[in-house]
Amino acid sequence: MNPPPIKKSPLAPAAFPELPPIPGVQLATTESGAKYRGRDDLMLAVVESGATVAGVLTQSTTAGAPVRWCRRQLEAENAPRALLVNAGNANTFTGAAGDRHLLDTCRAVAAALGCEPEQVLAASTGVIGEALPVDEIVRAVPHLASKLSDDAWERAAAAIMTTDTFAKGTTARATISGRSVTINGFAKGSGMIEPNMATMLAFLFTDAAIPRAVLQPMLTAANAQSFNAITVDGDTSTSDICLLLATGKAGNPPPASVADDTLDEFKRALDEVMLSLALQVVGDGEGAQKLIRVEVRGGENDRAAKAVAKAVANSPLVKTAIAGEDANWGRIVMAVGKSGQRVEPARLKIAIGGVPVTEAGKRIDGFDEAPLSAHLKGREIAIEVDLGLADGCARVWTCDLTHGYIDINADYRS
Amino acid sequence: MNPPPIKKSPLAPAAFPELPPIPGVQLATTESGAKYRGRDDLMLAVVESGATVAGVLTQSTTAGAPVRWCRRQLEAENAPRALLVNAGNANTFTGAAGDRHLLDTCRAVAAALGCEPEQVLAASTGVIGEALPVDEIVRAVPHLASKLSDDAWERAAAAIMTTDTFAKGTTARATISGRSVTINGFAKGSGMIEPNMATMLAFLFTDAAIPRAVLQPMLTAANAQSFNAITVDGDTSTSDICLLLATGKAGNPPPASVADDTLDEFKRALDEVMLSLALQVVGDGEGAQKLIRVEVRGGENDRAAKAVAKAVANSPLVKTAIAGEDANWGRIVMAVGKSGQRVEPARLKIAIGGVPVTEAGKRIDGFDEAPLSAHLKGREIAIEVDLGLADGCARVWTCDLTHGYIDINADYRS
Repeated sequence: MNPPPIKKSPLAPAAFPELPPIPGVQLATTESGAKYRGRDDLMLAVVESGATVAGVLTQSTTAGAPVRWCRRQLEAENAPRALLVNAGNANTFTGAAGDRHLLDTCRAVAAALGCEPEQVLAASTGVIGEALPVDEIVRAVPHLASKLSDDAWERAAAAIMTTDTFAKGTTARATISGRSVTINGFAKGSGMIEPNMATMLAFLFTDAAIPRAVLQPMLTAANAQSFNAITVDGDTSTSDICLLLATGKAGNPPPASVADDTLDEFKRALDEVMLSLALQVVGDGEGAQKLIRVEVRGGENDRAAKAVAKAVANSPLVKTAIAGEDANWGRIVMAVGKSGQRVEPARLKIAIGGVPVTEAGKRIDGFDEAPLSAHLKGREIAIEVDLGLADGCARVWTCDLTHGYIDINADYRS
Repeated sequence: MNPPPIKKSPLAPAAFPELPPIPGVQLATTESGAKYRGRDDLMLAVVESGATVAGVLTQSTTAGAPVRWCRRQLEAENAPRALLVNAGNANTFTGAAGDRHLLDTCRAVAAALGCEPEQVLAASTGVIGEALPVDEIVRAVPHLASKLSDDAWERAAAAIMTTDTFAKGTTARATISGRSVTINGFAKGSGMIEPNMATMLAFLFTDAAIPRAVLQPMLTAANAQSFNAITVDGDTSTSDICLLLATGKAGNPPPASVADDTLDEFKRALDEVMLSLALQVVGDGEGAQKLIRVEVRGGENDRAAKAVAKAVANSPLVKTAIAGEDANWGRIVMAVGKSGQRVEPARLKIAIGGVPVTEAGKRIDGFDEAPLSAHLKGREIAIEVDLGLADGCARVWTCDLTHGYIDINADYRS
């Protein structure tokens, strides 16, 4: 049942970072027998009573049972107590049985913790359309509940992986009204990545005291610049979930509104954590060898600029050219032209790795390809597009398209 | 300068078909020295005075100089006399010099034939952003004009290829008011294929007598169901041009309107020729091993159905699964869900190769994967999606995504 061993992405960080305990949060993982052998594939996170939660979820119209369950609990503003995540089966397009199986697993967690099933959030990732191995998961829950600890962050990040080649986590600190608070986050994701209002799976925990009504707009704003700004293959998952749980154990005075300036530092830290996780997901894009940043400015507005940036970032011809370290900038011109947005070729300026390539609707006179070719041999590629029309701008990250993507997706039912 | 030798697509027809002469049309090809060595890369077609022309062109906002030139001549309703096509250089994003070079080549043809430059249509395909080798092309024109013949169809189809692995042509006959007429067509295209209101390069010739005002709506209608219904990689070219030239030599009474029922048989023949060429382009999709037909019905309207069909046909995860002959139908669910169109999972029915896979929002009970796996081993794959909402329908063709696509595009500047 295990995927073939895949070489660690060359874009992986040297090591998983040191994540400190978050007061009010405990974690456990186990090998449930539901899917993989020889590795943990089930993760339970428990927060103490009094925590708040915010979430962003996939906009897919064929969203999985866990996404629909989380949406319901978030809308009902049920106080969160736990989060159960399994890897290997998405519990998506599994009909009424999928909803029953999900409820069974949440009931098992509620029984073990002494709370309501509606206080248990759930997420699943893996193959679509196969029945959830519910018995294995329910059976594993009491064991998980018995081994909760405050330092299982790396194991938690590893237990939710599917085709990921490394565990993804990060941490940041901030102060709110003089109180020091911490944000920890971990995520998974490698293919089927073009999050739309959400991400693959990302879970963030903080000890800050922040009411739900304040937490949600902060998460939504940070999400727009991080997970919603990445793409691996343009394929939006049915299972994207990003949750932020705040335990309040730091004891800061709760901010009254999202505009409260005591939150400035926390917002920066949240942005930092979300962007770090999003870039780790792109850096583990299936087959990825290079991280590509696409910056668009001069658009008619931000929405138009983002459409142009996504057209470039999702173009298989641009992504294969970068994989081949080929300075084939004409493919960027093509992608800009197909974006459906207003473009005036004579105003369009393209630069790669800081090297200007075009001006006045053509390649710069006396253009020297050498510095551009040198940039393309690196791991981090920067594409800048100036549309020269107005002030709209956008930044999107993607990875190159290599044989590894084909290997992983033509040969393994992920 | 030549691309590496690429194995002929397994989806290629056994041989180039026998194309009969079209009265009033003559063709010639040559090795111009502009790009490739050891093969023809320049093609001239000449039609006698009195011909009409219709065309559909790329909607890219970074369209090449030949596209903008053709648009101008079609709008001006200039009587066509010739068509010059070069392979290997797209003359796109080449600034004012690109327009001058184009005019120089049309002037050379006009001088050789004794007509106006505005009566010469032009098309270019190949790398974007490099200066057109105008001297080589201009020098080759008198030689081309001296060797025109009525039977050079296969050589013409071969001279316009870039990464194509086979020459694409077809022919059909019809009668108009009792007169027998012929349509010949040839095309090129392999990558950067998601035509938007046009195609890569396709040229159709008929001896029918059809006024321009009648010819254009027929071409537009046939295009919607053929070239505008195919995708290889979702990348819309800057150079797509499809032209239909009618010499009138068949002597049929010219139809007064596109609704004239003497045109019924001709329309069917035109549809057949266009669809054959479009399918040959997909069948030569870069790295293609399988031809995939995506049928969507039950959509809210035809536009919505086409958006769903395109989401499936452009999904790299669907295309790699089919390359791997993996019955991973969950990825079709994902693609339908990301399309942005209304979907009710409980009504969604998916069938592959005529084998029903889902019902009531889940996999069919007792589903047997064996017949589906057998279908996936074939060369032609059929995906049917019934949204179960209303009567909207669409049909789109694509190919699988294989290592061949990466080989061609990461290693060769096409």
